[in-house]
Amino acid sequence: MATFALASWATNLTYANLTAPVIDAAVKSIYNWAGCAIGGFAQAAPQIALNTSFAAGFGGPPTSSILGLNGSLGDGTGLSFADAQVAAFVNGIASHVDDYDDTHLATIIHPSGVVASALFAIAEAESRSQGAGNRPAGVVSGEDFLTAFVAGVEAELKLGLSVYPEHYDVGWHITSTTGSVGAAIAVGKLLGLDSEHLQHAIGIASTQVIGMQAFFGSMTKSFHIGRASQGGMLAALLAQRGYTSTLTALEDQYGWLHVVSTRENASANFAQLGKGTWEIERNTFKPFPCGIVMHPTIDGCIQLYSQIIADGKSIESVKSINLRVNPEVLVLTGQTDPQTGLEGKFSIYHAASVALLYGQATPTQFTDQIVQNETVIAMRKLVNVTTDDSVAEDQAHITLTFDDDSTVEKYVEHAIGSLDNPLTVEDLKTKFIDQASRQIGSLSAEKAYNAFASIRNMTDVGRLRALF
Amino acid sequence: MATFALASWATNLTYANLTAPVIDAAVKSIYNWAGCAIGGFAQAAPQIALNTSFAAGFGGPPTSSILGLNGSLGDGTGLSFADAQVAAFVNGIASHVDDYDDTHLATIIHPSGVVASALFAIAEAESRSQGAGNRPAGVVSGEDFLTAFVAGVEAELKLGLSVYPEHYDVGWHITSTTGSVGAAIAVGKLLGLDSEHLQHAIGIASTQVIGMQAFFGSMTKSFHIGRASQGGMLAALLAQRGYTSTLTALEDQYGWLHVVSTRENASANFAQLGKGTWEIERNTFKPFPCGIVMHPTIDGCIQLYSQIIADGKSIESVKSINLRVNPEVLVLTGQTDPQTGLEGKFSIYHAASVALLYGQATPTQFTDQIVQNETVIAMRKLVNVTTDDSVAEDQAHITLTFDDDSTVEKYVEHAIGSLDNPLTVEDLKTKFIDQASRQIGSLSAEKAYNAFASIRNMTDVGRLRALF
Repeated sequence: MATFALASWATNLTYANLTAPVIDAAVKSIYNWAGCAIGGFAQAAPQIALNTSFAAGFGGPPTSSILGLNGSLGDGTGLSFADAQVAAFVNGIASHVDDYDDTHLATIIHPSGVVASALFAIAEAESRSQGAGNRPAGVVSGEDFLTAFVAGVEAELKLGLSVYPEHYDVGWHITSTTGSVGAAIAVGKLLGLDSEHLQHAIGIASTQVIGMQAFFGSMTKSFHIGRASQGGMLAALLAQRGYTSTLTALEDQYGWLHVVSTRENASANFAQLGKGTWEIERNTFKPFPCGIVMHPTIDGCIQLYSQIIADGKSIESVKSINLRVNPEVLVLTGQTDPQTGLEGKFSIYHAASVALLYGQATPTQFTDQIVQNETVIAMRKLVNVTTDDSVAEDQAHITLTFDDDSTVEKYVEHAIGSLDNPLTVEDLKTKFIDQASRQIGSLSAEKAYNAFASIRNMTDVGRLRALF
Repeated sequence: MATFALASWATNLTYANLTAPVIDAAVKSIYNWAGCAIGGFAQAAPQIALNTSFAAGFGGPPTSSILGLNGSLGDGTGLSFADAQVAAFVNGIASHVDDYDDTHLATIIHPSGVVASALFAIAEAESRSQGAGNRPAGVVSGEDFLTAFVAGVEAELKLGLSVYPEHYDVGWHITSTTGSVGAAIAVGKLLGLDSEHLQHAIGIASTQVIGMQAFFGSMTKSFHIGRASQGGMLAALLAQRGYTSTLTALEDQYGWLHVVSTRENASANFAQLGKGTWEIERNTFKPFPCGIVMHPTIDGCIQLYSQIIADGKSIESVKSINLRVNPEVLVLTGQTDPQTGLEGKFSIYHAASVALLYGQATPTQFTDQIVQNETVIAMRKLVNVTTDDSVAEDQAHITLTFDDDSTVEKYVEHAIGSLDNPLTVEDLKTKFIDQASRQIGSLSAEKAYNAFASIRNMTDVGRLRALF
């Protein structure tokens, strides 16, 4: 019944069901995703993915934006558009490659990337075709888009809650393993699938289990997001045309819930869909482009950087950096000697060092160049990490010892970006503009921000890309 | 070291390393795959997959054959060719949808579909492009093709042995979960990747875990083969252009071997690559288009059909059909009341009934029409199944009781098609021609058989499709 419960809830969801906080969270999630997809395109991973797709001849008529490319709408000639599956793949990778996206802390799912990358690409493709479901031909309104997005995000997050932490502890990358189902539901909802067809779509999506933690620190981590986005999209499109699966894909003895987890309570979670907590309201946005368990340490080190300057001390005179942190920090980010920017995103030693040296942790601090910088390498060797079960995941204790044996301490109770200390709307805008400007210029970045931030009022989301 | 061992073995493999029995097994595996891919295209699943791909605009320049479509080479206008990823997807589905392909009995892997669908599509695409590796531009010789195919098949089968049966018992569809790695190795080998790039390809392929047993009896079962084929192909193409993964994808604490299985001995298995048993020599070819655990029962029932006729008895006077079989028969094929042809392929009740009623079990006996036939339904209700651990998977005991309480019995010691009772070359040709003729006509079927059966001698496999 779990698969049916999920599909029928999604099928029946309307924009009128969405509360104001849900809409607000959805809009922030979408423009934060878009900013990450634009800015992240500077990385090699999405560019190799795009180039490979084109070189291999995997690309139909261009309908859907590669968000980080600054082309003009409708030219049909350049690489700024691709077919929907290539666009979902590349935007999905770009949106996650900086580890700068968003986090549902209760499941460690980064919810928007897989769902939005598929949904936006399909909305654009629909705008160039005959439409679907009961919408006027080719038009995906902002309200339709938000409703489908919320359906997909709630689905993946409730599914994630049903198996967390057991599923994660096995080694799965929970963002993409649940994300393909979320993307199928979002796209299926946009296409107007009925409950039975959506159940088939859930089946086709769920049997594609993408992503393991072995790949954290390599380009394959963000590949998971792009591939799961494609997989969910394909599932919805196949189901729309009558491709069959089983109606009980999730709860079947040999289906998703039992195969990928040792525990599940999906029925209980799905019964709460739209009733109790909307999971999207618990989404948070990353202030730093790296593994979220390092964020309390970075927050504290940035504060210490300012304090050292204010005190007239010198960072060069620090002789040891002692961190007391949650045990997950070493499980996920214990890399002592990273070699690439992507590896640096999973090194607590690197994160603490750049925060103390530069007073910030932006994409610039996680390039290959900075990871290989001699001063940074020397600083990483001063970092000692102690884990402590009593330290929460959004907390950190930091003690710096100077050459004269004096010390300064910093305790971060709730890291910036956490639920108790969220980024403000202004912070989110700054984050968007900073990322996007470096890739498409500040004028386009400002326009892009305005377009995505007001997506709710658009009559045709498929034409959004023309606004920047 | 497992990932390195696998990649370096594959990288170093040459045609000269292949023994005559290995080459013979590879050629049979390839033409048996091709026959299944041609004949299977009659099913709805591959046709929906193809139509969806085209309707959604997922298709670049046509380079690679849809094997079951009888187009002419190089016209570039029709649907007989697609881009390599669409072709791999559709041919993969078509080659498996009838459950008529091949089986490595030690792992229950159907080895050729995932690997050959990717490899053939890329060989054709290469023939239309600039070539790769150190081959003359655009030419994939029969020897190159066979070497890459054997590399991919040995890889997936040794990987399967490393985790069988634990991995299968969890509920994974082992054909596709290992197949994506096999396809990546085969395509990577064809593209001339070095060991390090091939390790990255293995990583990207292995993190796409496609296929669970919940979907047996639906179109999603064959989707697994097509999607895994695409996934492995994509992995090799991305790695070729520098997309990074980890060099230890399989053995990593949070990598494939540990995440998808409770046990593994990959290092031991990979150490035997090319030295001890070549797994491809243990490949078998299905005489009946359905779950292989039902084959002993079908074999026996077909023999009983002839015996009843010879004895002057009537099948209408059978009042009960008692089967004593291996326990896996009810685990995998226990469906008592199938509704579709695909479900009938996983119903021991249906299989026994059609074998007794028609004296054969070809694709015709597994159509929706026959599954819903009143006489067949009545016969299914006469079938009683008892399981017995002492009955091997290739054995069955069958007892028919007639209205006059007389009985006839049949014990099948080794089902036709099993390692101890294999299909002959003549059987395999008959199977190919029978399948292919219904789809592309007998003249083309004969030509297609000759082309694939002599693939070893071709100078450009990418031009094979022009021969039929």
